[in-house]
Amino acid sequence: MTLETVSTNRSHGGVQGVYRHNSAATGTVMTFSAFVPDHASGTTLPVLWYLSGLTCTHANVTEKGEFRQACAEQGIIFIAPDTSPRGPDRDGRDVPDDAEKAYDFGLGAGFYVNATQPPFATHYQMRAYIETELPVLVAEHFPADMARQGITGHSMGGHGALTIALRNPGRFRSTSAFAPIVSPLNCPWGHKALSGYLGEDRAAWADYDACALIDAGTRLPDLLVDQGEGDAFLETQLKTHLLREACDRAGQPATIRMQPGYDHSYYFISTFMAEHVAWHGQRLK
Amino acid sequence: MTLETVSTNRSHGGVQGVYRHNSAATGTVMTFSAFVPDHASGTTLPVLWYLSGLTCTHANVTEKGEFRQACAEQGIIFIAPDTSPRGPDRDGRDVPDDAEKAYDFGLGAGFYVNATQPPFATHYQMRAYIETELPVLVAEHFPADMARQGITGHSMGGHGALTIALRNPGRFRSTSAFAPIVSPLNCPWGHKALSGYLGEDRAAWADYDACALIDAGTRLPDLLVDQGEGDAFLETQLKTHLLREACDRAGQPATIRMQPGYDHSYYFISTFMAEHVAWHGQRLK
Repeated sequence: MTLETVSTNRSHGGVQGVYRHNSAATGTVMTFSAFVPDHASGTTLPVLWYLSGLTCTHANVTEKGEFRQACAEQGIIFIAPDTSPRGPDRDGRDVPDDAEKAYDFGLGAGFYVNATQPPFATHYQMRAYIETELPVLVAEHFPADMARQGITGHSMGGHGALTIALRNPGRFRSTSAFAPIVSPLNCPWGHKALSGYLGEDRAAWADYDACALIDAGTRLPDLLVDQGEGDAFLETQLKTHLLREACDRAGQPATIRMQPGYDHSYYFISTFMAEHVAWHGQRLK
Repeated sequence: MTLETVSTNRSHGGVQGVYRHNSAATGTVMTFSAFVPDHASGTTLPVLWYLSGLTCTHANVTEKGEFRQACAEQGIIFIAPDTSPRGPDRDGRDVPDDAEKAYDFGLGAGFYVNATQPPFATHYQMRAYIETELPVLVAEHFPADMARQGITGHSMGGHGALTIALRNPGRFRSTSAFAPIVSPLNCPWGHKALSGYLGEDRAAWADYDACALIDAGTRLPDLLVDQGEGDAFLETQLKTHLLREACDRAGQPATIRMQPGYDHSYYFISTFMAEHVAWHGQRLK
């Protein structure tokens, strides 16, 4: 697959790049960023995936995530994909968006699902894009050791990280999340996204719900979650306690930390990013 | 003086705030950001000023500077002012801008001077704002030990940091810069800004030229400069060698480091930010 380099900048001893390519999964041009630390020629490095939240592109974490210092120290490649298909498709048609252009559905809100409902099913195949297509591209174009992958994400992207890891046992040595949506089955963001992309049959939703996947018996080696206690979405959307309860029921090892005073922003994420990268680093050695 | 809080976010154990106030110096509302690390009640902390470059507001370094971790470790307050007056003044008139809305004069390009030329003299008093007005406001509203101040900045803001420190001997215990404009007397950005704000009499320019101030006999205890060798502005605008030569002539102690591969962006600044903060921290203890 062909990869076009949008930009590269030297940073923290490595290279922060932005790349784009034609995606077969979404039928659009997709953009992502990759930080590759300094490394000896011919060697490969483990990969940490970071899935972003509602409204974000690759750029938010790339600019504000404060991950490069830690990734340089740990020798980890950091990949940040987009959150939905965007722009014109191969036929020059705009990707469909939320009917009212709301921030929580459509553009910037792919929810890491494979949509089955028209008009979204044609392009909103973010699960296939992240799970299947992009890893092949990363393995082909970067010095990546795909036997050593970790995954993390924020909010909707925390949901993405948890569910992708749970559905692909053995693929990721390490899984963490910042302020994840832990149960789309039980929050308004989830209801809107899953009904819009998958239809009203809730049986189809369970594949996209971390708590339901844990209840159904899938397991991770362990799990790190940080959640701000001052997060305005905690009670209505994120509901961290549901994940804690699911892990307790299942005996799923998990470190779930409530962080007093922290909100939902990158000021929160960047505070704990280095700890997450180090936590992944220990498991990716 | 009254200070309005625009936003506060908990980050790296402290508080990242954005504030605005009516400025007597500029006759406009001015916005700045301040990071205050966690500290014992009743104690004060040293202050590091960061002056931004062309086109920037307080927001660029606040979002992309990666300074909070280091400032939290060192216990340093980090203040990031705007780069020019903006918006309507007290009489509802827009602040004058570059005739062609270019990025290198007018809005976002105050050059840290006190303008003497109409129509800029009324509002473009950034030297007075940074040197005189804002320190009073910071001392009044933050737990700041104004006997322990350091200053740094990027590009136009590196020029600002160097010239403000050189003109105020004894005020700053530590001075550093990222990719500074070292001699506005000798580059197109400087010629445009200084002629526009100060008129064609170059004698009035020397107060705003770090190399000229060093040649005239002012001194700093020492100085740290990082400059990317891949910086597209190095040869035509920044001319780091002129600062090295001025320091050599004057016996001014200076650590001027050329960094291979780095450009002019925040990917460069953020790479060396922690080292600069630690360098200031040693001198502000």
